[in-house]
Amino acid sequence: MKLYDGGRAPNPRRVRIFLAEKGIDIDLVPVDMAAMEHRSAKITELNPLQRLPVLELDDGTILTETVAICRYFEELHPEPSLFGRTALEKATIEMWNRRMELNFFMSVAAAFRHTHPAMKEWEVPQVPEWGAVNRPKVIEFLEIMDGELADRPFIAGESYSVADITALVAFDFMKPARIERPEHLKNVMRWYGEMSSRPSAKA
Amino acid sequence: MKLYDGGRAPNPRRVRIFLAEKGIDIDLVPVDMAAMEHRSAKITELNPLQRLPVLELDDGTILTETVAICRYFEELHPEPSLFGRTALEKATIEMWNRRMELNFFMSVAAAFRHTHPAMKEWEVPQVPEWGAVNRPKVIEFLEIMDGELADRPFIAGESYSVADITALVAFDFMKPARIERPEHLKNVMRWYGEMSSRPSAKA
Repeated sequence: MKLYDGGRAPNPRRVRIFLAEKGIDIDLVPVDMAAMEHRSAKITELNPLQRLPVLELDDGTILTETVAICRYFEELHPEPSLFGRTALEKATIEMWNRRMELNFFMSVAAAFRHTHPAMKEWEVPQVPEWGAVNRPKVIEFLEIMDGELADRPFIAGESYSVADITALVAFDFMKPARIERPEHLKNVMRWYGEMSSRPSAKA
Repeated sequence: MKLYDGGRAPNPRRVRIFLAEKGIDIDLVPVDMAAMEHRSAKITELNPLQRLPVLELDDGTILTETVAICRYFEELHPEPSLFGRTALEKATIEMWNRRMELNFFMSVAAAFRHTHPAMKEWEVPQVPEWGAVNRPKVIEFLEIMDGELADRPFIAGESYSVADITALVAFDFMKPARIERPEHLKNVMRWYGEMSSRPSAKA
């Protein structure tokens, strides 16, 4: 199988970190998103929604959506578990991963896509006001997370999970979205320091 | 256990349809969202993000996020499977459920929350332009879905799944969001007619 990869874009990075944590090696096909190659005829044929990453299985089956691709690898290579083992673990990690997506990742993405000049062709039409109102939402949410992280090492509990990957990528995505790092949130910053120093963070 | 329910709001309805499809009976605690009871001290204690539904287990453990709650019930009551059985089924259903959420449900929700007068206190600040640009995105996405549904009965393939629930609730949510039903999309309308006539649709 092979993974059509999108370089520095956040969703492709989520899948690469996931694979690195699992120790899975896979063929990457680079797609130059800055040159709009994700809207090429080739990628559109694989994914009519023109989003990356895209996983192509050996029989030609296509899987898209970051978390769907990660879940496929979790099923094929259950260890180390990044989605949980018991019913309660699975539900808890799903809850935290979604909280990270809906309240953190998507707000950072909205700020970036709707205010960054380089996104004019990507996000049509840009609504700068929508980008701007998302910046304070990110900090409000991280203030809640600072309380959560006061007494546990990882986003979803005592173990590293896919929710940490989503949150790490969202955190690094704050820079191009021009959202200042919340240095006053000591627990968030401690968590960020620990996540960033894992070898997978370089993926 | 008990489920803090939000009446007519779309996410609580997704969970109720899921439970109806599984044949699971559970104590519902009604929360009057029109009276802003989801921002009460009681609900805020259960979910600092003040969203519904919220599942409280018998030992007091709290689960939030619609799909996390559904996944918990899928693990406890695997039949009928609504998230898939094999690795590829699970990933495919995850992909389609996310496509329904990211490209359909969330665009309808943005149109509703950012333009409806009743949402002024809920969505602060409303950005009417953001609501407005989401309406044509919904129809563009449903045009793609019309092609997909030309040769299969359900959103994710040959079986009913959680992706059909997400899409059905999004479809009905178009009315308060003032998005016209795409009567010209025959396959989408056929699918909608079939989903609406399942007994679970009344949940």
